[in-house]
Amino acid sequence: MTKGNINVSVENIFPLIKKFLYSDHEIFLRELISNATDATLKLKHLTGIGEAKVEYGNPKIEVKIDKENKTLHIIDQGIGMTGEEVEKYINQVAFSGAEEFLEKYKDTAKDAGIIGHFGLGFYSAFMVAEKVEIVTKSYKDEPAVRWICDGSPEFTLEETTDKTERGTEIILHIAEDSTEFLEEGKIRELLLKYNKFMPVPIKFGTKTHTLPLPEDAPEDAVAETEEVDNIINNPTPAWTIAPSELTNEDYMKFYHELYPMQFEEPLFNIHLNVDYPFNLTGILFFPKLNNNLNIEKDKIQLYQNQVFVTDEVKGIVPDFLMLLRGVIDSPDIPLNVSRSYLQADGAVKKISSYITKKVADKMSSLINENREDYEKKWNDIKVVIEYGIITEEKFAEKSDKFTLYPTTDGKYFLWNELEEKIKPNQTDKDGNLIVLYASNADEQHSYIQAAKDKGYEVLLLDSPIIPHVIQKLETSKEKISFARVDADHINNLIKKDEPVIAKLNETEKESLKKSVEEAITDKKFTVQLEDLDSTDAPFTITQPEFMRRMKDMQATGGGGMFGMGGFPEMYNLVVNANSEFAGQILKAENEEKAGLIQYALDLAKLSQNLLKGKELTDFIQRSYKQLEK
Amino acid sequence: MTKGNINVSVENIFPLIKKFLYSDHEIFLRELISNATDATLKLKHLTGIGEAKVEYGNPKIEVKIDKENKTLHIIDQGIGMTGEEVEKYINQVAFSGAEEFLEKYKDTAKDAGIIGHFGLGFYSAFMVAEKVEIVTKSYKDEPAVRWICDGSPEFTLEETTDKTERGTEIILHIAEDSTEFLEEGKIRELLLKYNKFMPVPIKFGTKTHTLPLPEDAPEDAVAETEEVDNIINNPTPAWTIAPSELTNEDYMKFYHELYPMQFEEPLFNIHLNVDYPFNLTGILFFPKLNNNLNIEKDKIQLYQNQVFVTDEVKGIVPDFLMLLRGVIDSPDIPLNVSRSYLQADGAVKKISSYITKKVADKMSSLINENREDYEKKWNDIKVVIEYGIITEEKFAEKSDKFTLYPTTDGKYFLWNELEEKIKPNQTDKDGNLIVLYASNADEQHSYIQAAKDKGYEVLLLDSPIIPHVIQKLETSKEKISFARVDADHINNLIKKDEPVIAKLNETEKESLKKSVEEAITDKKFTVQLEDLDSTDAPFTITQPEFMRRMKDMQATGGGGMFGMGGFPEMYNLVVNANSEFAGQILKAENEEKAGLIQYALDLAKLSQNLLKGKELTDFIQRSYKQLEK
Repeated sequence: MTKGNINVSVENIFPLIKKFLYSDHEIFLRELISNATDATLKLKHLTGIGEAKVEYGNPKIEVKIDKENKTLHIIDQGIGMTGEEVEKYINQVAFSGAEEFLEKYKDTAKDAGIIGHFGLGFYSAFMVAEKVEIVTKSYKDEPAVRWICDGSPEFTLEETTDKTERGTEIILHIAEDSTEFLEEGKIRELLLKYNKFMPVPIKFGTKTHTLPLPEDAPEDAVAETEEVDNIINNPTPAWTIAPSELTNEDYMKFYHELYPMQFEEPLFNIHLNVDYPFNLTGILFFPKLNNNLNIEKDKIQLYQNQVFVTDEVKGIVPDFLMLLRGVIDSPDIPLNVSRSYLQADGAVKKISSYITKKVADKMSSLINENREDYEKKWNDIKVVIEYGIITEEKFAEKSDKFTLYPTTDGKYFLWNELEEKIKPNQTDKDGNLIVLYASNADEQHSYIQAAKDKGYEVLLLDSPIIPHVIQKLETSKEKISFARVDADHINNLIKKDEPVIAKLNETEKESLKKSVEEAITDKKFTVQLEDLDSTDAPFTITQPEFMRRMKDMQATGGGGMFGMGGFPEMYNLVVNANSEFAGQILKAENEEKAGLIQYALDLAKLSQNLLKGKELTDFIQRSYKQLEK
Repeated sequence: MTKGNINVSVENIFPLIKKFLYSDHEIFLRELISNATDATLKLKHLTGIGEAKVEYGNPKIEVKIDKENKTLHIIDQGIGMTGEEVEKYINQVAFSGAEEFLEKYKDTAKDAGIIGHFGLGFYSAFMVAEKVEIVTKSYKDEPAVRWICDGSPEFTLEETTDKTERGTEIILHIAEDSTEFLEEGKIRELLLKYNKFMPVPIKFGTKTHTLPLPEDAPEDAVAETEEVDNIINNPTPAWTIAPSELTNEDYMKFYHELYPMQFEEPLFNIHLNVDYPFNLTGILFFPKLNNNLNIEKDKIQLYQNQVFVTDEVKGIVPDFLMLLRGVIDSPDIPLNVSRSYLQADGAVKKISSYITKKVADKMSSLINENREDYEKKWNDIKVVIEYGIITEEKFAEKSDKFTLYPTTDGKYFLWNELEEKIKPNQTDKDGNLIVLYASNADEQHSYIQAAKDKGYEVLLLDSPIIPHVIQKLETSKEKISFARVDADHINNLIKKDEPVIAKLNETEKESLKKSVEEAITDKKFTVQLEDLDSTDAPFTITQPEFMRRMKDMQATGGGGMFGMGGFPEMYNLVVNANSEFAGQILKAENEEKAGLIQYALDLAKLSQNLLKGKELTDFIQRSYKQLEK
């Protein structure tokens, strides 16, 4: 039997890094700046605990392009490395310096925000550089060294007097196929994408700063200018600051910093902050959703210790919150995120349910703090809340506290308020509470009016997913059911034990029904005679709740009880046997009778938005003719 | 100066593989079966060229779960390995055996379909196994060996007599946190996801097969059954077969194999086949897009040598074809695909434009082969074609050959046919060809009717992106412009040099206009007096083309000329000064006059679908009352 050690073939490590480590070449800059940040924060930590006897100062990281020499420089003022450390951290691939550091200083370093995985990240430089130099000087009193490697496993390492300041400079000799990384515009774009909120100031070029004039300056004085460092990042973004120290203005400012192309203000913000059982900070914003063009672009961004990772947060953020905006920062989310992996990851599941809970709590406190303001914003946030109710049980359980039910009159009820308000009048003879609603105040106007005439409240529920929400409410609450105002005549929607008065006798009714049925050839209408108030409309078209709701659910997906194929369009034509018009029909003969019925049917169809195309054109032409008579 | 070699730290290689190689643990099975396939195809190649003096036979790959021992077995009957080869291919990480093999046999092996990157892929086993065994016997006459490694860099290797058959068996001792991979359901799911079309038969368990009864069997005979291998894959999927050998039925069968949850037939298929300057095969299907529930799920799948890679093909397939279904198989697409990487990759760009060209060519031949059938399917494919026209210049250039323009009468014209047909009648006095269209035959019925009464053709263009398509056509073709039928009175849409007869004198017109303007308080209507045919509608509401089109474009995104904020709703109220009704208004007094104008406005609003809510309810109630008089 042979025993041995698996040998990693070094010749192949560079191609491997190119091929597997990051499919995205531009990542190299994020990695190198992470390392520079890391080196700076390490020094901060060591000076903080008194282990490094040097001045920490106000270190920054500088990124510099040298177009002539085709090099890109990343220069930090951090901890630096001795020759020995270069041997250890650079020449030993896959040896994570940061890990070792964290291990050694684990008690004190926890909050120092040390990013990473030094080691492999550095080698991503070879994705874009044909040669890489490191010139570095440790904070310890040792000579600076220069390390050079051309991407083969061979390197050179020597002492140098070129560097007198503490810190590390990485010099990338950009390869022929990567010259885009010598363009200022490209580097600026990458810095803004990945490093906009990193914790150490990043200098990229300089800018001209106009000095203020002295108070006693003459009127024609010209202000002096000076060149100052152009700092590209905000090292202390809002989410790293305690909520108690932030004003609403600060949150708005941060929102626009995050999404420079968004001109509208967000409605609410939710500050996330948890350190057990996982670490997560962040700020979520509820944007105005209507009329929004940048949904695809301005998504929630995921950071890891202030380094941008991705804006694909599906799985981490529950589906119903995907329309929100903002930032989530957590070291506990795996960096290489694939969807199926995320779904299975326990930590990620916990994060997702924490966010759900936090959003629910925030909604509860928002409505309590300022009900009026919350009501104003309801229309913009309702889709998110409603989607949450149908997809997240935990969210649904809390939702009665902050879900509003607007009426067609512009009132807003919480569920318990609604119940209290309508119970006396809208409980039917079997003890069921009937909640009336409309999906469109314009299109269902005459039906809403009929319900209001009875003193009923009519909700205005107009989101496309409302049928699913209603279904959910009907199963989770007892003895309630929802009915759209045009699902039947209002007398039938809320049946009461009241005597019915009939003007016509059975023979007359029979005759009336027969006349209407004969005149109406369209098979989709079922004639239904009712003894209603004489002032109620002579003809009304209704569409039974169940069928219509199934249709609506199918349209928004997921209903599918009946599988494929549309439902047939079925309507009831409610004929008011007590109307004067009913009497007129009975009295009329032949053509006149048919004309009357046709006209009344046209009017009923208009009410239900069913008179269209040629029928409508004909109706209008007939009406003009009528006028000319 | 020191010189040295960069050293890869072996202790860290396993954590690295877990962390970086694949974020998706389930990938291990795809990798191991790829290796098994590879080993089998290598043997096929070597026996084919006479280098291996053994029988190739009908080898298969077996996947077996041993729940009791918590092991998962992948067994092939391929080339096998000698002890020396295990040393070389397994113990040297990142040494790609397949690459070396391809290098050695490059002239003959090109078409053997060898998958891979042996070496690293194998190590993905450690993502789910705490111990991995390889038991392997080479096709060469050498003893079998057993290799064992527990995920540390240490391994053992010894000769064994346990294996007498040629091939390799990989035994994974599944780790505690990965026991899901001991579930039959999970493994079946993975095999069907990644290996459904791999080129070597994969056995997973057995199934019962009922033997046919002999012809002379008695009526009460019971058919005998036998246990047969359950082969889970189709080793020769349709895209690997020459189009000339496939019937339409074969394509349909493959479609359902690919998407078992799709019950509808696709409309067309496009067989892709290119070997220069890149390798690509595949079949794309045009599905029926309307009423489709699985758009998110049943997407185009990307394969590499019959191994499933992903169904995220954004970047590889041009955007406008993302609604298609099917398979693309290419070894030239990088495996670790990130979006920004793909966008920059030259090979990928070529693939995308090849697919675009191929789809355009197919459309041209389809319409030529069977115009009637193509017309029938137009409604289902138009969105794809239209989206292609506005997003891919190369596609747009060819699109006149296969883009249909349907009329409201159900005719279908190609552009040149349309031009020829309407040129005589629809060229205005300035020589511009005016193409009339409607977006909804029902809603714009009266306007369509007015245009048809003049002998004009009215197109029915109802996709949401039509405004963009029209914009594109107007800029790419000369002296044409599109006008929706309700953009103005038809006489103004196509202006001709025809004498206008006015019934009213200027004073009467002045008075008429003033009356109408006074009666109509709604600021969104601009009164426009016109001398039209006396039989034309007295009042017509129109909406100018430019404003409406900008609004529509904004609604579908990308229009944005005016940035944020909606356009105001502006309409013209065209009053026909020659209508009898105009005379009536002039003659009427006070309330009657106001009533007449209101009624005519209501009717005009009905025509344009603008009479809604309370206005409509009032109109209906007034109409009933009228009847009762």
